[in-house]
Amino acid sequence: MSSEPPNDVVFPDALFDQRRARLRERLEQARLPYVLVTKPVDIFYLCGFKGSTGVLLLGPRRARLWVDPRYTLQAREQSRGADVIESREALSKAVGAWLRRARVAALGYQGAHLTCADFSRFRQEAKGKSSGPRWKSIGATMDELRMVKDQWEAERIRRAGALTAAVFREVLPMVKPGVPECDLAAELEYRMKRSGAEGPAFETIVASGPRSAWPHARASGRCLQGGELVIFDVGAILANYAADMTRTLYLGTATGRARRLYESVAAAQQETVQGLRPGLQAGQADAIAREALTRKGLADFFTHSTGHGVGLEVHERPRLGRGDQTPLPAGSVVTVEPGVYVEGYGGVRIEDTVLVVESGPEVLTPAAKEPWFIS
Amino acid sequence: MSSEPPNDVVFPDALFDQRRARLRERLEQARLPYVLVTKPVDIFYLCGFKGSTGVLLLGPRRARLWVDPRYTLQAREQSRGADVIESREALSKAVGAWLRRARVAALGYQGAHLTCADFSRFRQEAKGKSSGPRWKSIGATMDELRMVKDQWEAERIRRAGALTAAVFREVLPMVKPGVPECDLAAELEYRMKRSGAEGPAFETIVASGPRSAWPHARASGRCLQGGELVIFDVGAILANYAADMTRTLYLGTATGRARRLYESVAAAQQETVQGLRPGLQAGQADAIAREALTRKGLADFFTHSTGHGVGLEVHERPRLGRGDQTPLPAGSVVTVEPGVYVEGYGGVRIEDTVLVVESGPEVLTPAAKEPWFIS
Repeated sequence: MSSEPPNDVVFPDALFDQRRARLRERLEQARLPYVLVTKPVDIFYLCGFKGSTGVLLLGPRRARLWVDPRYTLQAREQSRGADVIESREALSKAVGAWLRRARVAALGYQGAHLTCADFSRFRQEAKGKSSGPRWKSIGATMDELRMVKDQWEAERIRRAGALTAAVFREVLPMVKPGVPECDLAAELEYRMKRSGAEGPAFETIVASGPRSAWPHARASGRCLQGGELVIFDVGAILANYAADMTRTLYLGTATGRARRLYESVAAAQQETVQGLRPGLQAGQADAIAREALTRKGLADFFTHSTGHGVGLEVHERPRLGRGDQTPLPAGSVVTVEPGVYVEGYGGVRIEDTVLVVESGPEVLTPAAKEPWFIS
Repeated sequence: MSSEPPNDVVFPDALFDQRRARLRERLEQARLPYVLVTKPVDIFYLCGFKGSTGVLLLGPRRARLWVDPRYTLQAREQSRGADVIESREALSKAVGAWLRRARVAALGYQGAHLTCADFSRFRQEAKGKSSGPRWKSIGATMDELRMVKDQWEAERIRRAGALTAAVFREVLPMVKPGVPECDLAAELEYRMKRSGAEGPAFETIVASGPRSAWPHARASGRCLQGGELVIFDVGAILANYAADMTRTLYLGTATGRARRLYESVAAAQQETVQGLRPGLQAGQADAIAREALTRKGLADFFTHSTGHGVGLEVHERPRLGRGDQTPLPAGSVVTVEPGVYVEGYGGVRIEDTVLVVESGPEVLTPAAKEPWFIS
């Protein structure tokens, strides 16, 4: 891991200008002079404000950020290139009034994030006595923009991945029979925070024995036992960016059955990572993993998709799933995480976060996969 | 804290039947034979399934739970009184097909949770060649049902509160000048998990000096300094239920200014807690705190509402805010958290989670508020 402080990747102000300019280009194509951004992580992406509540209205020239009084100080300190407006009434009222006064004729909104109830509130407030603006969902526009990571974002995810791998290595010596799953999860998350992370990007999974056959098991009070598989799915958020990594261990001398499962998943994972390159369709990446497991007769036990994008959110575009035709752009960051799950016995999943670039895939979660059994 | 294991409050199966029956009563009043429940925490409330994705369709007699293959095993193990249906296609497709086959004429949906995009997907899939069912938002129905906690829920929140208070007491001796905020946050969250909690109910806030004037500051790498206020806002989720507590400390011998702020907030908080009783309007509870701070000339520095419900979510109904006329039902659990924030100087907030019952308010976060300065 880098010895530099974790948050010294400073995003230049110009970066936020560029992001808003790219969004404006897309809006112009859709003939939308304005867009209402309501998803907090997208507000952060476009102007740097990191509060849980706020509304960003991006217009042809300016960006305006409405916040309630809890967030006024924070918004003034954090926002880059947006005018901060404090509102003591509901934000939909304040924004609606502004839209009426400015006679905005058409605006985009985030249909995949805004709830039906909030949408009708905004629409109602923007109407006044006229019929109000024409509203049009911008669909996945923000997700598409965020799919391509710039060098600053890639570096932040690299550091989140390095931190995740480092805490996993630190906790490895504590993995032994008799230890409760939740103690190991607590250790992992504690060390993340002590290393400067905001915290886990998701609730850390430690799932042992039959529980490892639940792809989304949570860490429980169950104690690890010898002769069992244990899945660790762990990832930190550091300076707003996530990483995601899974390792599987066997406690004891691996049986033939455990070995066959492990080696099949490890080979499928490795082959898929090596196959990643800009332009590959997300579904083709999924197919590499699925075909590798099919050759081992394990396809039926691989019950989820192969991976997902990682960035400001731990699950974002693209989805590496069956038939998905999205070409992976250069600069995308995705997980590769095939797994097999045998009910009543256990499961194996191996996952890395990977940067997709022309020069070849870069694994951003550098924790060893061998040895995978603790005898 | 109870010496019993934290998760031995077993919800009887009949409880889930009762919850569904109460929802059905409300639906009958609205002439809705079916309701589509899509918010995960409400799915848990109604049938015990705790996955992040699933769709529950509650009908006049049966409840059906659609999940994707990741969650099949877990849903079969956890669901109480709902038929589990595994779907390998999008859940909206599977549910839509079922609605068409069953010729469902009208159904409710969660307009305050469902996104515009998901809603149109479900509506499209349910249509087929006919005009499809009539859709009607059930508004805040689920929130209203969940506002009243039964004895099992109250006991779980009581334990989450006891755990939260206990870890705060454990970490208190580490609070001293030179310690980074994020180390203390890490300690608090680590001890939560080691004590059996799922984890923090929200990102733990440790905000010192001028940062304590940000009502929603996050723990940063800033080191605590003598002669400053420090706000700790902390809460665990234990066995699915949250607690929420805030304490403020002063490092050193308190100055007159710090003392005036602290004592004013402490008195306002105490008076508000003591005033809570079933039937009191939420806005009246807010007014008690606001008037107490007005008498001290501090009303302008109290920039948020007085509290919120706590349960399966850390922020739920009711909202103890200005003018809210919701009567607090017996069995509701709310926070009381007045605060004052002085830009450039610091802030004081004091918060407890409180059970509202006829016999008088019960504070569920039993950590001392005195001494509040560490000299």
